Amino acid sequence: MTLHPSPLPAEPHDGPEPLGPVNSALVPRFAGPATFARLPRLDQVRRADVGIVGVPFDAGVSYRPGARFGPAAVREASRLLRPYNPAQDLSPFQAAQVVDAGDIACNPFDIGEAIGTVQSTVAQVAARCDRVVTIGGDHTIALPLLREARERFGEPLALIHFDAHLDTWDTYFGAAYTHGTPFRRAHEEGLLAEGACAHVGTRGPLYGRIDLDEDARMGFGIVTSDDFQSRTVDDVAEELVRRVGDRPVYVSVDIDVLDPAHAPGTGTPEAGGLTSRELLGVLRRLAAAQIVGADVVEVAPAYDHAQLTAVAAGHVVYELVTVLAGKVADTR
Amino acid sequence: MTLHPSPLPAEPHDGPEPLGPVNSALVPRFAGPATFARLPRLDQVRRADVGIVGVPFDAGVSYRPGARFGPAAVREASRLLRPYNPAQDLSPFQAAQVVDAGDIACNPFDIGEAIGTVQSTVAQVAARCDRVVTIGGDHTIALPLLREARERFGEPLALIHFDAHLDTWDTYFGAAYTHGTPFRRAHEEGLLAEGACAHVGTRGPLYGRIDLDEDARMGFGIVTSDDFQSRTVDDVAEELVRRVGDRPVYVSVDIDVLDPAHAPGTGTPEAGGLTSRELLGVLRRLAAAQIVGADVVEVAPAYDHAQLTAVAAGHVVYELVTVLAGKVADTR
Amino acid sequence: MTLHPSPLPAEPHDGPEPLGPVNSALVPRFAGPATFARLPRLDQVRRADVGIVGVPFDAGVSYRPGARFGPAAVREASRLLRPYNPAQDLSPFQAAQVVDAGDIACNPFDIGEAIGTVQSTVAQVAARCDRVVTIGGDHTIALPLLREARERFGEPLALIHFDAHLDTWDTYFGAAYTHGTPFRRAHEEGLLAEGACAHVGTRGPLYGRIDLDEDARMGFGIVTSDDFQSRTVDDVAEELVRRVGDRPVYVSVDIDVLDPAHAPGTGTPEAGGLTSRELLGVLRRLAAAQIVGADVVEVAPAYDHAQLTAVAAGHVVYELVTVLAGKVADTR
Amino acid sequence: MTLHPSPLPAEPHDGPEPLGPVNSALVPRFAGPATFARLPRLDQVRRADVGIVGVPFDAGVSYRPGARFGPAAVREASRLLRPYNPAQDLSPFQAAQVVDAGDIACNPFDIGEAIGTVQSTVAQVAARCDRVVTIGGDHTIALPLLREARERFGEPLALIHFDAHLDTWDTYFGAAYTHGTPFRRAHEEGLLAEGACAHVGTRGPLYGRIDLDEDARMGFGIVTSDDFQSRTVDDVAEELVRRVGDRPVYVSVDIDVLDPAHAPGTGTPEAGGLTSRELLGVLRRLAAAQIVGADVVEVAPAYDHAQLTAVAAGHVVYELVTVLAGKVADTR
Amino acid sequence: MTLHPSPLPAEPHDGPEPLGPVNSALVPRFAGPATFARLPRLDQVRRADVGIVGVPFDAGVSYRPGARFGPAAVREASRLLRPYNPAQDLSPFQAAQVVDAGDIACNPFDIGEAIGTVQSTVAQVAARCDRVVTIGGDHTIALPLLREARERFGEPLALIHFDAHLDTWDTYFGAAYTHGTPFRRAHEEGLLAEGACAHVGTRGPLYGRIDLDEDARMGFGIVTSDDFQSRTVDDVAEELVRRVGDRPVYVSVDIDVLDPAHAPGTGTPEAGGLTSRELLGVLRRLAAAQIVGADVVEVAPAYDHAQLTAVAAGHVVYELVTVLAGKVADTR
Amino acid sequence: MTLHPSPLPAEPHDGPEPLGPVNSALVPRFAGPATFARLPRLDQVRRADVGIVGVPFDAGVSYRPGARFGPAAVREASRLLRPYNPAQDLSPFQAAQVVDAGDIACNPFDIGEAIGTVQSTVAQVAARCDRVVTIGGDHTIALPLLREARERFGEPLALIHFDAHLDTWDTYFGAAYTHGTPFRRAHEEGLLAEGACAHVGTRGPLYGRIDLDEDARMGFGIVTSDDFQSRTVDDVAEELVRRVGDRPVYVSVDIDVLDPAHAPGTGTPEAGGLTSRELLGVLRRLAAAQIVGADVVEVAPAYDHAQLTAVAAGHVVYELVTVLAGKVADTR
Repeated sequence: MTLHPSPLPAEPHDGPEPLGPVNSALVPRFAGPATFARLPRLDQVRRADVGIVGVPFDAGVSYRPGARFGPAAVREASRLLRPYNPAQDLSPFQAAQVVDAGDIACNPFDIGEAIGTVQSTVAQVAARCDRVVTIGGDHTIALPLLREARERFGEPLALIHFDAHLDTWDTYFGAAYTHGTPFRRAHEEGLLAEGACAHVGTRGPLYGRIDLDEDARMGFGIVTSDDFQSRTVDDVAEELVRRVGDRPVYVSVDIDVLDPAHAPGTGTPEAGGLTSRELLGVLRRLAAAQIVGADVVEVAPAYDHAQLTAVAAGHVVYELVTVLAGKVADTR
Repeated sequence: MTLHPSPLPAEPHDGPEPLGPVNSALVPRFAGPATFARLPRLDQVRRADVGIVGVPFDAGVSYRPGARFGPAAVREASRLLRPYNPAQDLSPFQAAQVVDAGDIACNPFDIGEAIGTVQSTVAQVAARCDRVVTIGGDHTIALPLLREARERFGEPLALIHFDAHLDTWDTYFGAAYTHGTPFRRAHEEGLLAEGACAHVGTRGPLYGRIDLDEDARMGFGIVTSDDFQSRTVDDVAEELVRRVGDRPVYVSVDIDVLDPAHAPGTGTPEAGGLTSRELLGVLRRLAAAQIVGADVVEVAPAYDHAQLTAVAAGHVVYELVTVLAGKVADTR
Repeated sequence: MTLHPSPLPAEPHDGPEPLGPVNSALVPRFAGPATFARLPRLDQVRRADVGIVGVPFDAGVSYRPGARFGPAAVREASRLLRPYNPAQDLSPFQAAQVVDAGDIACNPFDIGEAIGTVQSTVAQVAARCDRVVTIGGDHTIALPLLREARERFGEPLALIHFDAHLDTWDTYFGAAYTHGTPFRRAHEEGLLAEGACAHVGTRGPLYGRIDLDEDARMGFGIVTSDDFQSRTVDDVAEELVRRVGDRPVYVSVDIDVLDPAHAPGTGTPEAGGLTSRELLGVLRRLAAAQIVGADVVEVAPAYDHAQLTAVAAGHVVYELVTVLAGKVADTR
Repeated sequence: MTLHPSPLPAEPHDGPEPLGPVNSALVPRFAGPATFARLPRLDQVRRADVGIVGVPFDAGVSYRPGARFGPAAVREASRLLRPYNPAQDLSPFQAAQVVDAGDIACNPFDIGEAIGTVQSTVAQVAARCDRVVTIGGDHTIALPLLREARERFGEPLALIHFDAHLDTWDTYFGAAYTHGTPFRRAHEEGLLAEGACAHVGTRGPLYGRIDLDEDARMGFGIVTSDDFQSRTVDDVAEELVRRVGDRPVYVSVDIDVLDPAHAPGTGTPEAGGLTSRELLGVLRRLAAAQIVGADVVEVAPAYDHAQLTAVAAGHVVYELVTVLAGKVADTR
Repeated sequence: MTLHPSPLPAEPHDGPEPLGPVNSALVPRFAGPATFARLPRLDQVRRADVGIVGVPFDAGVSYRPGARFGPAAVREASRLLRPYNPAQDLSPFQAAQVVDAGDIACNPFDIGEAIGTVQSTVAQVAARCDRVVTIGGDHTIALPLLREARERFGEPLALIHFDAHLDTWDTYFGAAYTHGTPFRRAHEEGLLAEGACAHVGTRGPLYGRIDLDEDARMGFGIVTSDDFQSRTVDDVAEELVRRVGDRPVYVSVDIDVLDPAHAPGTGTPEAGGLTSRELLGVLRRLAAAQIVGADVVEVAPAYDHAQLTAVAAGHVVYELVTVLAGKVADTR
Repeated sequence: MTLHPSPLPAEPHDGPEPLGPVNSALVPRFAGPATFARLPRLDQVRRADVGIVGVPFDAGVSYRPGARFGPAAVREASRLLRPYNPAQDLSPFQAAQVVDAGDIACNPFDIGEAIGTVQSTVAQVAARCDRVVTIGGDHTIALPLLREARERFGEPLALIHFDAHLDTWDTYFGAAYTHGTPFRRAHEEGLLAEGACAHVGTRGPLYGRIDLDEDARMGFGIVTSDDFQSRTVDDVAEELVRRVGDRPVYVSVDIDVLDPAHAPGTGTPEAGGLTSRELLGVLRRLAAAQIVGADVVEVAPAYDHAQLTAVAAGHVVYELVTVLAGKVADTR
């Protein structure tokens, strides 16, 4: 949409080198459409290695709503991202064709229908992008994303789940599918690899000790936020990598894993969380695992300030995309 | 960029009916890219009747900067606009092919270069869109926009200028081209039709009585904001229409013409301004004049709250586009 | 909950004089629980003339969610309300027993169930309070409120509907019950008195001219926001009173009838709205009609600033309660 | 404090022409210390015609505190004021020597002591500045300001009081001196001229009808905010000028006379208030009365947004200073 | 006040099991009155083990006021708290009867009177609740709270004081009782156990080295915020527990002990503070000491964002209540 | 400008003891003009040891503008600073004469001219103040500040540069002088001591690996923000002190070195940054090096909340001034 210096749309890109983001030395970062990191749209390339897709849906939230505006906010905050990731020593948009695949339009009034739409549409995206990173939306969407991944990869997935909360509750107001239940449902449906799943960053009050007992029974490991006071980021990351082994791994990041100081723009804030430096530190070190898909959810911009939360979420997506792009590069 | 229900990009539209905005009963308003009013991009159509273009530039401001983020903010706030304008009894996006022509990328460090870029690029847009409405950016850009319009229409333009300020000052820090001087420069360059120009909504302190004297000498009429306390919107609009006669008219709306209560997100707020209802009321009634181009400038989102200013600016653009679309319809 | 000077709860009040609000010359306004206007709770009195009830529900919104926090925000902002209304020359809490009846707890994940809960619970409230004023929540709740009122009063109701929008749309994403459709459903179900209904303050774009045509076919009159530029508040109020005649009247106030400058904290803002002075002015003058019930909806606090919107909504409730209390006083 | 282009402090100014504000064409408005309108300090001149003094005191507030930060906020927002007032056709800083006289430091923990400090210190200011305009602070300070004025002018003063509230209440928590009582105390102490006082812009609930009765008994006239819906600004101003006659007039402006949309940054907001255009309009027309002193109070910046309230208050001060400067000019 | 599913108030609860909070799986967290953690009111039970009481008082602050709104804000933010505390492995509301005892209404205009009211009223609360946790208000209130505790427990108390500041200053503007002096007064009055008191988290500039010398002379120990860069939470907590020994301990938490990033909503922010994770970590580990009372003060909501500060304060209260409830459980 | 208790300006101070800040026990912190830490102005003393000067300039920014309001915001937030620094055990304003030297007024429309003005004006300041600490403004100004320091000290300077970014880029839109390039220009011009320069706190994406290679070639060392996860503040500070040796050292602090949680009010935020405690900790420990000048830049108040960023920046200035004052004290 930027007119200068190259106003006219090209044919879908099909060259040997990936089509990269807009050049910020020629077009100011604040100009032009806010695709993620100013990357090309999916329809501007023949095919892609990594697709970033938004799911603006928040009908599954139990407290502060607003994550439906999350994808737009994260994209807007991602204008500042540059193409080389020094922490992983990789230029992800050169190593792989990364694109913004747009938003999945789901029914805001019907959770069940929306879950179906997410699963079927992300399958369409996956048909054109080898790997998908999703920006939510509330955590309800992790279920259809795991269903689709389970189907596509042909086996249950290991899960590394960053969150203040367990999200393995059963029902709420009789509803089975909400943002507090996706991983219990996923466990019940056999989407998750036994003994290869972990929560990271949990804290704050629960309903009862039974919450922990049932969670343990489902086979989840836990690294609490408090654990980070006595353990290093390296140490935590190594444990996580060990736990998932060589299985395909799905990473799900609820932005409320961060302390509210680092992520005020979310729906169910709990004091005592991770710093963004800790979260990014762990994520980078997960490059040692076989990450195959990821999501970042629960950014609620109405509660954000100065894009604090959206910037953090954008960096989370960027680190995850770098990990995925690095795997593409490795296989070339 | 919206995947569902129609994920794949079409050929540039070339049918007998205009290509309209995304259907909000199928794709939620908060999903998909924020083109203005969710209209198609310029590159999605063969040609257009009205093009909306952003100029994210604010190096010409003397007080609070930030209007460089104006185009993105106004587009985001325009997601709520629907396709039928009851106040003008017209569906502008049916009456004419309206598109979002993207942003003009200008050098943020060099006012002179930026002015040149705006003029040349808007000329390229005008080659594909009969009429152009520009979203700023600071008021500096009115000068290159008027230069281009003067050239394209082959005659000086009448001007209806909504603003708290006169913007006919001479220099500031020795600089001739800033957001306080565009209409003096335009007058000096012969871009404006003698006796057919007016300021609307001015108020607040000036540097001296000479500001008014010189402005009057340049032939501008003035309807102050205070005048709206004793005159009706109809009355004001009639005077303006009379003043411009049948000349081609350019409308320039500095959003600070609104009271800071209605437009906090701007750079040089002055108490005692218009309500958004008054501004929209006058604009609609300008359909009786020969409007050929327009801009809306000085939206500084960092000072906005809950999109108040951006929503107002979006409605201003919508009324102006409706006027222009109505003229297209009349000539068919 | 205030300990000083009277810490202990009394028996439910049953005296000849109504139990009034907390005395602000003894207990600061910022102390103690935020019942509406610091009035007693329903369970503190034997019965009441007017009950104020909250419906924290917003699953029916199509754009910005958050009205679920509306009742709490309006109550918090109502701490400043004093007991004598000079504009209507009445002390409503002396003229009638007014209470805060608490919130109706509805399922946030199931619109249909919630609509049922609202209707049945408000009926329970109405069994103990002759008149009910409801604080939303989104506009979806007007339907069950009208259903209950229709049943209780035994006849269709006249409706005076303050809103930027018509809210007589048909469906949205296939959903029949949302915040954009309550009055079409109410019309279809025969809840509304033919020819005795009106929208006040509408403005902004629609989907098509058919929206107006169908609305007119359903018998609604319209006073647009723009009409207030040429008509006085007296004039508008008189027309409304004439229109509803001596039928029982329900008043529904979507706070977005106010200009976003006066009510930023709402979900679907439209520029060019009413001032709070205009809205309160019309409401007071409706004392001449047979108001029997009312709601104030769509306050979304996450978008509010300095309680601007919540204060306005609190004043709206206060004027409506005064009207209802005045009718109680008249019948004594 | 601005180094460039004239870094060094001069001797106190004593020339035939007043020492004016910093030249904004050479020193940007955002540079240098925020004296009111960038005027000289009192210590930079031998004597002054008009002194602007701050009273950062808010221990007398009954609801939201914070007006102690009012003087700093109003000065900061006054950077934008230019030296010529077109609405009154006067350059006030040329017509008279106007200065910023600094702040009065009062004890924040002892209302009685603070009242004494304000009276004695403002008398010191008045010894060097013929006329004083005060920026509050909460409305408690109007009492010592009126005491000092009564003494200095040797007769009771007429009062034009802009406020949402009457401020003639008696006590609050047993306290006689708060922001709700200054004008009752002033009446009791004989500071006010009988029958020459009026409230303008009142609205919102009171404690009882007795509030109005007692206020009337003290001789105050009232122009409510609602009256502005049917009366013009000219009409209201004329009535006020008639009422005060040729007595010395004190003008006290509680910024909450503005609607919360125009002045969110205040402590006891009431919906339905004046626009800033109405307030400024009336103030200008008071040039016909014998204004001798004024205050602007109750700006609470913590609740402000984008300096909305502070800009309005700055304009109020500017109009009042222009009126006072005009009288100086008239007597030369 | 919640109508559904149990609308009617019960007799004061007197069963063998404590009356717990509202069930959030049936009544949404955003519905109903905001008692702390949605617990019952004191008047709903016969007696309680732990009472939470608010003191909305801030006349003792020296900089940003607003803590009078602290109790309401902390309660509102406490809606998210769930009944099981995994960090202490206890369900505090099952282990003990915990209630919200309401607010203490104190004179906002007279510090001396307010101090008296706090002491006498909290004694009344303590007559019905074995242990009291107080939510401020400014830190002035720690003095009457310590006076009452000293009296009730019959011996001087050990003190663990979390704060950026020492709060052992002498006078300010000649005032002996302000938010900067409570612990010097408490020391002078013999309320504190010699050698068993400590400040935690101090940092930032002081008036002079004498501040530290006098503080040491009064017997306070200090763990600075900077110390947390080289010491673990375990290490600090152990030192504190050792220091207080088996004396009854009062814990006073000024929320400004947190870094402004974690607690922007406070009156005298100092950079370089604790994270909420560090603070909560230390508090939990204080379960090893004989905590008998506590307060959390200086939450000033007007400066908060997205309830950041209030959420942190709510968690602080929750940890302290859990500690106290655990001691009740231990003695059963 | 404070009237009470000492209203009249004195002769420039010339006593044996430095003229200190306003006494906050007599004049409330919120009263009087906001010089830095309420220190005297430069024109109030004969000469000074340390001068604090503002440069309100931001025309060199590439993303969010607004740092032109930085000096005013930092001064306003510095009202809370007290005169004794316990972390360095020094009363800097007693140890040395510290003053606020005001702002440098530069042309906001011409980067080249502004750079010249900064250099020449700071030289004038340095003629009266032995050491200068500058508050920006954007990072462009580091170049003229280094040019002046290079000239004044007669040798290249060691540099300790705290920043999220390298700021050694070459050009941007063809512009050589922007906020992203000062240290490359300084290197090219020979202003920096070879091998004695380091970046601290860098993180986030770059344009390419070449950015790091070229930076290393210019001789900069790097301590990344991530390094702080495994290294102590002592350790980092020692490395920096070793690196600069006994050369004269310039410290440049871009406030975006802090995590956006700690410094939201800045123009190019990057997640994963330092805490304010870490930054202040390192700065204090730099007292062991030969610091001769410093700046703190990139505070953009429009994006700040509750003065979070400005308070942090004020503390940074305070620590740097303490270091400089300590060196003055050492030489006496």
